[in-house]
Amino acid sequence: MKTVHVNLGDRSYDIRIARGLLGCADELLPWITGNQVVIVTNTVIADLRYLSQVEACLENKQVFRIVLPDGEQTKNLKTLDSIIDQLLRIPCDRKVTLIALGGGVIGDMGGFAAACYQRGVPFIQIPTTLLAQVDSSVGGKTAVNHSRGKNMIGAFYQPRRVIADLDTLSTLSDREFASGVAEVIKYGLINDLSFFEWLEKNITSVMRRESASLEFIIAHSCISKANIVEQDEKEAGKRALLNLGHTFGHAIETGIGYGTWLHGEAVAMGMMMAADLSTRLGWLEEKERQRIKAVLTRASLPSDPFSGLDQQVMIELMKRDKKVQDGSLKLVLLQGIGEAVVTDCYSASALRDTVKFYTAS
Amino acid sequence: MKTVHVNLGDRSYDIRIARGLLGCADELLPWITGNQVVIVTNTVIADLRYLSQVEACLENKQVFRIVLPDGEQTKNLKTLDSIIDQLLRIPCDRKVTLIALGGGVIGDMGGFAAACYQRGVPFIQIPTTLLAQVDSSVGGKTAVNHSRGKNMIGAFYQPRRVIADLDTLSTLSDREFASGVAEVIKYGLINDLSFFEWLEKNITSVMRRESASLEFIIAHSCISKANIVEQDEKEAGKRALLNLGHTFGHAIETGIGYGTWLHGEAVAMGMMMAADLSTRLGWLEEKERQRIKAVLTRASLPSDPFSGLDQQVMIELMKRDKKVQDGSLKLVLLQGIGEAVVTDCYSASALRDTVKFYTAS
Repeated sequence: MKTVHVNLGDRSYDIRIARGLLGCADELLPWITGNQVVIVTNTVIADLRYLSQVEACLENKQVFRIVLPDGEQTKNLKTLDSIIDQLLRIPCDRKVTLIALGGGVIGDMGGFAAACYQRGVPFIQIPTTLLAQVDSSVGGKTAVNHSRGKNMIGAFYQPRRVIADLDTLSTLSDREFASGVAEVIKYGLINDLSFFEWLEKNITSVMRRESASLEFIIAHSCISKANIVEQDEKEAGKRALLNLGHTFGHAIETGIGYGTWLHGEAVAMGMMMAADLSTRLGWLEEKERQRIKAVLTRASLPSDPFSGLDQQVMIELMKRDKKVQDGSLKLVLLQGIGEAVVTDCYSASALRDTVKFYTAS
Repeated sequence: MKTVHVNLGDRSYDIRIARGLLGCADELLPWITGNQVVIVTNTVIADLRYLSQVEACLENKQVFRIVLPDGEQTKNLKTLDSIIDQLLRIPCDRKVTLIALGGGVIGDMGGFAAACYQRGVPFIQIPTTLLAQVDSSVGGKTAVNHSRGKNMIGAFYQPRRVIADLDTLSTLSDREFASGVAEVIKYGLINDLSFFEWLEKNITSVMRRESASLEFIIAHSCISKANIVEQDEKEAGKRALLNLGHTFGHAIETGIGYGTWLHGEAVAMGMMMAADLSTRLGWLEEKERQRIKAVLTRASLPSDPFSGLDQQVMIELMKRDKKVQDGSLKLVLLQGIGEAVVTDCYSASALRDTVKFYTAS
């Protein structure tokens, strides 16, 4: 069992990480103050045992389910409207606790619904994918997509508790699991060379989903992210480092269509492109670029040129990123493994060369 | 010129109250840090001089307008989606400042859009109605309506600055002006007997819109509300006092249809019903009830039984109020003029009698 404390003043909370947590009422009940609980989940999770495990912990509460279709395409204002509609039909009052049981999409939807419903109700997150456990479980980012861009409508809204049960990772497909590993690798690249080196040595046991490795990488990732978020909750500065690979990745997801690429796959490709651009700029050594590519490959993540996206379209999509300020596009680039920087001081032609190279296929 | 400081830690801001503020660039420019400004307003305001006055102050900025149809019926998620769409088409980055220029609906829509767009961008409020100047200018409540209830989707989101220019009140219709006076009277009823007595003496000069009276009642109302909000920003307790008349009033607005009654008219009727119920409970003297009715009448506000709403429907609608907790409906009632309390200790049959009496006509 590991506990990671996220220290954000009166919005602080703990992340619990272990096997078998879903069956423990003690992990859940103390964080629910009202009588009403609404579990927001999706059709895939509802068919597994996780939903009934959570419901079994809530015997003395009024429990309702909102089951959404699976997939990123449900993450929009229309689904938000339908969640609010269901909450009002029950009707739920302001003391209702919303539990998001699922991956990143469910966490984002459930979290944003909790942030907005009656201007904010208590929220608990039970991430069931590796990606959600190492990424969205820390920092309170919630959002829905707009047809013109990903995560464009949202709120910073912290949960009261996060429960990361390693058992839920057993039902992930290999592709979904690898997608989570992309975000884990990201923490090494940003500011933690020794963690990257650990991953180079242990990536095989990670991909085999061995318990000790899982618990270590999840706790380590959550601590890394918490350290950054505690210094910059609202992404005014340092928090932007966490977007390594994401400006490229979001453009791939938006341009090719949400759902074709998994989020972590797009981020892996984006990190590769950031490494490539950094190498073109002379900031990263070629052998470092190759080490990054090697780890991504061993984690079954994409790092080669891909088809389906025009280079000019990709650059236009990148310019809609939330990190654009006063017309200039800031990127997270690498001055070494474990030395990411947020910068708009890069050659536009080198960026074009990188995009051209990877979208050429 | 009066300045009211709203003290909310790192979310503190000033409200400036005087004639002629809209033409002063110095009142606006220091609070805008980026280059992009988007003014959210409505068709009625856009036809008056106020919009061009504000734009004239912003010569060195990139200025865009989003002009919404007038009225409460635009305050929904669909309009939010269209605002976000326009912001993304410009495209606006995260340093854009949104200015809400208009009444309460514009403040709510503009404020919630600012709260959500890219998880929050800077926001300035320029309320142009008395109601917005004395109510929504303090405390950062933003929201949109859902077909099942008013203000059900929203956020607590503080502006950087509020500019209340008394000149904008000259173009209000008598009904709109009176609607604002309802909220002013509310501050007297809640916790300020001497302000209520001042209103009893001076209501004629208020209704004539005399400058000195306007500046006094607006500043006094903002200070009253700021005192309460500073103690309870997120409405966990004391802030609920500000909802005097609103549980009844929202039910009237929802039941009869937004727009038939003005918000302040519904609140006035709601305060009358709260006073009536308080009298039935023996908490308020009959002569106090009559004093309240007399001030409302002199302010051209409704206080008599009305038609168009079934009593059972009204009670059902009241039960959807945001102040319902664990099934019990808390109401703001009066133990005297200037002595409001939030309570669920009242006789349900007395509530039915009050609702029956006022909806019988």
